[in-house]
Amino acid sequence: MKDSIIPVLIIGSGPAGLTAAIYAARSALTPTVIEGKKPGGQLIGTTYVENWPGQKRILGPALMQEMREHAESVGTEFIAGNVTKVDDTQKPFAVTLDTGTTFHAHAIILAMGAEPKRLNCPGEDKYWGKGVSTCAVCDGTFYKDKKVIVVGGGDSAMEAASFLRSYTDKITIVHILEKLTACQAMQERILKDPTIKVIYAHTVSAIEGNNEKVTGVVITDQKTKASQKIETDGAFITIGLKPNTDFLPAPLERDQWGYLKVHDQTKTSVEGIFAAGDVQDFRYRQAITSAGSGCMAALDAERYLSALRK
Amino acid sequence: MKDSIIPVLIIGSGPAGLTAAIYAARSALTPTVIEGKKPGGQLIGTTYVENWPGQKRILGPALMQEMREHAESVGTEFIAGNVTKVDDTQKPFAVTLDTGTTFHAHAIILAMGAEPKRLNCPGEDKYWGKGVSTCAVCDGTFYKDKKVIVVGGGDSAMEAASFLRSYTDKITIVHILEKLTACQAMQERILKDPTIKVIYAHTVSAIEGNNEKVTGVVITDQKTKASQKIETDGAFITIGLKPNTDFLPAPLERDQWGYLKVHDQTKTSVEGIFAAGDVQDFRYRQAITSAGSGCMAALDAERYLSALRK
Repeated sequence: MKDSIIPVLIIGSGPAGLTAAIYAARSALTPTVIEGKKPGGQLIGTTYVENWPGQKRILGPALMQEMREHAESVGTEFIAGNVTKVDDTQKPFAVTLDTGTTFHAHAIILAMGAEPKRLNCPGEDKYWGKGVSTCAVCDGTFYKDKKVIVVGGGDSAMEAASFLRSYTDKITIVHILEKLTACQAMQERILKDPTIKVIYAHTVSAIEGNNEKVTGVVITDQKTKASQKIETDGAFITIGLKPNTDFLPAPLERDQWGYLKVHDQTKTSVEGIFAAGDVQDFRYRQAITSAGSGCMAALDAERYLSALRK
Repeated sequence: MKDSIIPVLIIGSGPAGLTAAIYAARSALTPTVIEGKKPGGQLIGTTYVENWPGQKRILGPALMQEMREHAESVGTEFIAGNVTKVDDTQKPFAVTLDTGTTFHAHAIILAMGAEPKRLNCPGEDKYWGKGVSTCAVCDGTFYKDKKVIVVGGGDSAMEAASFLRSYTDKITIVHILEKLTACQAMQERILKDPTIKVIYAHTVSAIEGNNEKVTGVVITDQKTKASQKIETDGAFITIGLKPNTDFLPAPLERDQWGYLKVHDQTKTSVEGIFAAGDVQDFRYRQAITSAGSGCMAALDAERYLSALRK
């Protein structure tokens, strides 16, 4: 394996990576997908998706399974593992996994997605998995009729609160701004629910517990800086995403938040390396927009490779 | 109807328009879709689609029907008709149909798609529908064991030739350039078929017939300008697309081919008017990329409208 050169190596297996694979495979580029830490990407951690065009309601994991099977059926090779190093100083590029294996590829599509941000406050690490979670869908079931805090005001916070609502009516949302930033539809669903309390202009400054599990959080008023403690059994942190780009070498230009800079839709600052999905998109972050950009990256990689062959 | 103002009016009902509708409807913007001359867009004229992520093989019309039902189920209103005029000098914008009805909208998403280009050579109009066609899928069945010419060298030409192959083994492709421009996978399928003849560096300069139907075409060598006649029963013109933007007012900037110029992904030169899909994309033109850009246009329109409300 080490000696063969992969035409197109795709890092990541969410909607962007798998759509890139489907298009690259259908262009006879025999792509290889390195699945990453979370095969299937963020939709694996969701329940029903209602905005994938043509599917009124489909389970996120089911949609990703269909895409994976599609990619496989047209000739994609899948490698389980996580990339720890991309070497752009040699051509073909070298990509090394945590297993130590190195692959060589003529073109790379970066589609590692993004992952939930942390608060970085006292107690967060200590109670991680003991009341602190970033995934309501994964952990909601442990909070039946219990008190929960949802931190954040965007789409993922609303989604988390909606999801938790089927387990408990003791939900408090703590949001740093004066108003929610989620899309209209999601805000409305939350705001019209009288059992959900929203505390605006506050941050969670500490997570407290009894050494075994979370018992409360300290919230701080953004204006007065006054703090108060709220009792809770769980804290769901849904304050946005961080693109998984830390391991990339410096020549791959990123903005201050770590998002890859692209030009001409999918081209990174390194020729032959393309980016698709949430690693380069802080604005739309939908499954359908990621899939669209995965397709673009594959078509751009095809053009790049066919120009190389001339 | 004339007196109510539509929050988001979407012109066109292909993957871009319908995905925009799904997203706008889920944002409680009660969108209205003007379906256009060809409801469902270009996929309606295809058979199997094999590159819609998650669907290994689905009929184009079935995929579009599913998207339409999805858009309808979340609250999209559909109006049959064709837009003949967009007035951007008044706000809300005014959009007039060929039926004479005028609608007013706060935001518009342009998603009219593109349609096949014509050769504009002698005989083309005369024999239109009498041997001259732009849709192999629609008309292929009439050419069982007959001689056909496919004009073009891109994806749609390869697709047309592949499709016609199930009816006849007397196919000649006439292409203006020295090599095909279709994607690798499609080229290979054609080039490895010994029954398909490809004539490079020639154009079709005239279409001839017996007054009732096509009997041949005249092709001209691009270098020597020498002409020759080829006998044929049909000529399928698959030389690319023209965006359906002719009816738009001058302030909506377009390039020399008529494609809408966009900045920040979906914004046209007129604030409050967005573009998605093939009207602004000459490069990728896939169902999945159009759907992705439809989603972006709806989210951008939502942001525009929520800023207006402040």
